[in-house]
Amino acid sequence: MQDGWWQPTDEAAADATIVRDASTGEEVVRVSTTGLDLAAALEHARTVGQHSLAPLTFHQRAILLKQMALALTERKAELYELSSRTGATKNDSWVDIDGGIGVLFTYSSKGRRELPQSTMYLDGPVETLSKDGSFLARHICTTLPGVAVQINAFNFPVWGSLEKLAPAFLAGMPTLIKPATPTGYVAEHMVRILAESGLLPAGAIQLVSGSARDMLDHLRLGDTVSFTGSASTAERLRLHDVVQTGGVRFTVETDSINASVLGPDAAEGTPEFDAFVRGVVSEMTSKAGQKCTAIRRALVPTGMSDAVANAVRDRIAAKVVVGDPRAEGVTMGPLASIEQRDEVLKQLMKLREGGGQIVVGGDAAAVTLADGSIGEALEGAFVAPTLLSFRDAESDALNSVEAFGPVASMVEYGSPEQAAEIVARGGGSLVTSVASHDPVFVAELTRRIAPHNGRILLLDRDDMRASTGHGSPLPMLVHGGPGRAGGGEELGGIRSVLHHMQRTAIQGSPTMLTALTGVWHQGAASSTDAPHPFRKSLAELRIGDQVVSERREISLDDIEHFAEFTGDTFYAHMDQEAAEANPFFPGRVAHGYLLLSFAAGLFVEPAPGPVLANTGLDNLRFVTPVSPGDSLRVTLTAKQITPRETDPYGEVRWDAVLTNQDDEIVAQYDLLTYVAKEQ
Amino acid sequence: MQDGWWQPTDEAAADATIVRDASTGEEVVRVSTTGLDLAAALEHARTVGQHSLAPLTFHQRAILLKQMALALTERKAELYELSSRTGATKNDSWVDIDGGIGVLFTYSSKGRRELPQSTMYLDGPVETLSKDGSFLARHICTTLPGVAVQINAFNFPVWGSLEKLAPAFLAGMPTLIKPATPTGYVAEHMVRILAESGLLPAGAIQLVSGSARDMLDHLRLGDTVSFTGSASTAERLRLHDVVQTGGVRFTVETDSINASVLGPDAAEGTPEFDAFVRGVVSEMTSKAGQKCTAIRRALVPTGMSDAVANAVRDRIAAKVVVGDPRAEGVTMGPLASIEQRDEVLKQLMKLREGGGQIVVGGDAAAVTLADGSIGEALEGAFVAPTLLSFRDAESDALNSVEAFGPVASMVEYGSPEQAAEIVARGGGSLVTSVASHDPVFVAELTRRIAPHNGRILLLDRDDMRASTGHGSPLPMLVHGGPGRAGGGEELGGIRSVLHHMQRTAIQGSPTMLTALTGVWHQGAASSTDAPHPFRKSLAELRIGDQVVSERREISLDDIEHFAEFTGDTFYAHMDQEAAEANPFFPGRVAHGYLLLSFAAGLFVEPAPGPVLANTGLDNLRFVTPVSPGDSLRVTLTAKQITPRETDPYGEVRWDAVLTNQDDEIVAQYDLLTYVAKEQ
Repeated sequence: MQDGWWQPTDEAAADATIVRDASTGEEVVRVSTTGLDLAAALEHARTVGQHSLAPLTFHQRAILLKQMALALTERKAELYELSSRTGATKNDSWVDIDGGIGVLFTYSSKGRRELPQSTMYLDGPVETLSKDGSFLARHICTTLPGVAVQINAFNFPVWGSLEKLAPAFLAGMPTLIKPATPTGYVAEHMVRILAESGLLPAGAIQLVSGSARDMLDHLRLGDTVSFTGSASTAERLRLHDVVQTGGVRFTVETDSINASVLGPDAAEGTPEFDAFVRGVVSEMTSKAGQKCTAIRRALVPTGMSDAVANAVRDRIAAKVVVGDPRAEGVTMGPLASIEQRDEVLKQLMKLREGGGQIVVGGDAAAVTLADGSIGEALEGAFVAPTLLSFRDAESDALNSVEAFGPVASMVEYGSPEQAAEIVARGGGSLVTSVASHDPVFVAELTRRIAPHNGRILLLDRDDMRASTGHGSPLPMLVHGGPGRAGGGEELGGIRSVLHHMQRTAIQGSPTMLTALTGVWHQGAASSTDAPHPFRKSLAELRIGDQVVSERREISLDDIEHFAEFTGDTFYAHMDQEAAEANPFFPGRVAHGYLLLSFAAGLFVEPAPGPVLANTGLDNLRFVTPVSPGDSLRVTLTAKQITPRETDPYGEVRWDAVLTNQDDEIVAQYDLLTYVAKEQ
Repeated sequence: MQDGWWQPTDEAAADATIVRDASTGEEVVRVSTTGLDLAAALEHARTVGQHSLAPLTFHQRAILLKQMALALTERKAELYELSSRTGATKNDSWVDIDGGIGVLFTYSSKGRRELPQSTMYLDGPVETLSKDGSFLARHICTTLPGVAVQINAFNFPVWGSLEKLAPAFLAGMPTLIKPATPTGYVAEHMVRILAESGLLPAGAIQLVSGSARDMLDHLRLGDTVSFTGSASTAERLRLHDVVQTGGVRFTVETDSINASVLGPDAAEGTPEFDAFVRGVVSEMTSKAGQKCTAIRRALVPTGMSDAVANAVRDRIAAKVVVGDPRAEGVTMGPLASIEQRDEVLKQLMKLREGGGQIVVGGDAAAVTLADGSIGEALEGAFVAPTLLSFRDAESDALNSVEAFGPVASMVEYGSPEQAAEIVARGGGSLVTSVASHDPVFVAELTRRIAPHNGRILLLDRDDMRASTGHGSPLPMLVHGGPGRAGGGEELGGIRSVLHHMQRTAIQGSPTMLTALTGVWHQGAASSTDAPHPFRKSLAELRIGDQVVSERREISLDDIEHFAEFTGDTFYAHMDQEAAEANPFFPGRVAHGYLLLSFAAGLFVEPAPGPVLANTGLDNLRFVTPVSPGDSLRVTLTAKQITPRETDPYGEVRWDAVLTNQDDEIVAQYDLLTYVAKEQ
């Protein structure tokens, strides 16, 4: 801690937990936190960590995330090596390690594209609170002043840490990572790589390997806790005073009894039937079924059970080789530990007692050992992929018992209503998938099940090749779900960055809102001092720099000429009588694009200068029609300046207002340009 | 319940609570819930209420809100009459009654402007999940399947009910209102007016007057609870299983120790000094200080205490008349009950014991009785406006004791850092105000205190006339705050509508996302069948209707002509050598507005028809430069159709894509039009 590594004394570590290789039972590492000053680690984050992150803009933090992703990529072989000891196959490790690195890349890219070059996020549009425009409001989000504590599950030591780290880091909050002990050595190595990269701002990441049961005693208002794991641990933590009354934000993601629904149209031989079966088998065997997003309930139309069971059995026989992940050809590893294996077998027994009949698997797994031979591996935590069939869709076991391993249940449904009811009986899920090519069925079922799910995958012939699969949370999509799934939300792009910030409504005058936010607000002070703002580089340009153009009269000739030139001979421009009959026009009016074009002619600076290109336009609204004889003026004000971190230019957003001879607003929009940093 | 009124039997009501007039102590009403079947009322909402709201679009619900607002406006005199019995002056009642009605109007307007003509909300942009565009994602929000329970405080019986009702109703959730017993008769009458208006969809509103301590026992996943009141009740409710593990969303807004800060620049005689003093006095006396948003701590620069105390004293003497709100000239009424008065006096004692010196008030209030005479009203719950002064800014009493009445404390600060620290010592506030005309001070202080506040009012000479005041939550701004303020968020425009919905990430093919959302997604099925989509009324137009234009070649003559005609002679269009030196252009290129104008010429239908006007343009981006000799094609597809409820036309949003001869995207945007409902 305090930007160094702490280790318990040999004496203190006498009570250490021994962590073993999932396939062989060999000791991998010993873990203890005896003697650790957790409060000091947290306070180091809150002080030094906050202090070192606060001056960095979102874009600067985003670039660090990318560099961290590259540093991990460079040394990821080390992580794969360690990961195989947890029972993970190459594929499983890819999900964890490359998946985790991918989260950093996505947040780096989203941070630069969707967040401002600032430390403050503006949430939603300006709210005008008085008719004269002197009193406005804006919602801002500012960094929470504490530490983001993450308490992780054992199944994804790298991804689990990074999917929580990325949004917190981008928000400017230091993170304390508390991995699950059985696989924490992989998370530890990931943090070590980051620390050795030299990229980490001081205090930005703390790591606690091993038990930290009194963690919450040391938290306070301004800190956050993101928990992934069992519902019972979540319940215990949630009851802590700091959460109940202390204002510590507590986000939970727990396993849920997720479903996958085969559509009535998806008969054997259809691409959707195959995609459904592939999904079920993949979710049973990937990570040996130890995924909170795995399919636990396969819902199939009445009469389809046998066909699905046969297809699942065939696919497992053809594709799944259980064994030591280090052995050639193995596609499914052991569970993370003997304890996990025993727990899964216990839950499997509950499912059988609750009416589940084993239709696939259920026997002891034939296992490929590390040396390639086939045998029984009594020291390894192996379970064979197992599918149960239930007759009763209302069975409690079906809808509430989770065997956190390669185990799924199947049940038949009659109608979309009944399918939706069964999905809802899970009490809130992380994800449901629907395999169907019938848009009517898909839309009806999805509308019904959406309130019970954090994510829904619609699988059909059109997207199945590109689909990332039922069980894969993606960084741009929310991960979490209502009820049993914990009620939390992680990821979802910038949404989870904002979970680490406080939203505050700010009321004030345009000038004060401009001073606070760094974004010009209509009505705030402006400057029309020479030179023309298009002659200023980013280094010289200031928010509020403004050009008010000359007036230009619009003649009927202009309108007719523009119509003839562009081909836009819409009657409102060409036919007085027809235009008068239109409810919005007083008679013939100028084309909207004519106004935009003339406006550009009024404010342009023709000679080469710092303004490099007009890249686009936002929120253009035509407000008052312009008749022949009216005259046009444009006022252009520098509204937001966004230098790019890695380019010699940046984006300037200009507030553009077109007015007529009576100072009525004709049109308004945001004009987007690229402007060079230096002349 | 069940769309009728239930009343306890006389026998059962023997234990009824007697509610008394706050000024005179006369009995107003007796309240009892003995024998009420609360579970049935909730289930009626969940079944009949959900069923009657579900088919209505956001716009239809929004129009009902406006009609409800009008129905209440028509009979608001009845509410004012009742309200005066709670101790409210006309001004206080205006905040409660007209303020509450105003929330309905605002939500009606926002619902139509900011929500789609649909029952599903699309949250955020399309996320493209595969390079080929076959796999997309979208976040949708759908109505929670339960009942929105509101548990209200006594101080704003009308506003408190309506500010929670409006967003729930707009989201499609039925509401159960549980007002606080001391003023519940006003809320009851409000609900009665709504019921008698005939506007309410069946089951949309339930009302429980009186105790409902077992309320949460009857809730379940899909229900929500919004609570306003004391921290201790919030704590008790939050501990309930349905909140802890049952997935019932629980939003809390509790009183907080709000602050108002006088800036160092705001010396006596400045408009900001006066605005500050007006704010402090107004918040002490409005609603007799019984507002969770009232100023409890006045922070003034070192040496300013005396000046502020004198100004506060003078203003109270000049402006505040305490008495029966029904008497002429009275500007501050009693507290809501004798119990409230005693509680305030108890907290006032704690403030004094904690170091607070009374500098204004503190004596028994001289009271104007209903007949206009001055005297002591022993039956009335009167407290005189009282300001205390603290020397120690770190005093626990100052920062944590709340006297929920006309009582505020004052303390001096030295620097912006210290002012921010004192604000933060409140442990999280609903609102802080800052009176200063110094943008540097304001920006620095605001950035520091924002994470500790739900709302911040920046008060200066520019906005003080238009300002709605420190203590007024506004429907378009979030109301709530971190920590002690409860950690919840209400209002904030559409934000609180979404609190009543579940956000779900939907992954699928463009065609399935289109079928589900009713909004066309790039890549989904489209139809180019005749007639041209601009010849179709809203009744005939379908999502996906498309026109693919002819090609038009852009010549150097076109560019030069356009430059000359519009005056836009930017070098990138006119000077080959200079254009080549620009990092974004291969040489001379066409004007962006030339492309837009030609595109309009390519897709326009000149003759009068259902398309009435081009009203604007969103998200225009120029992607690939167009050189002389390139040819342009535009593809226009009906993306979203929004009929207006009360007009003979609606908005059609068109997806516009401009491509060149190599099918590269040149520009893309959303084109907005008004289209008639019928030919």
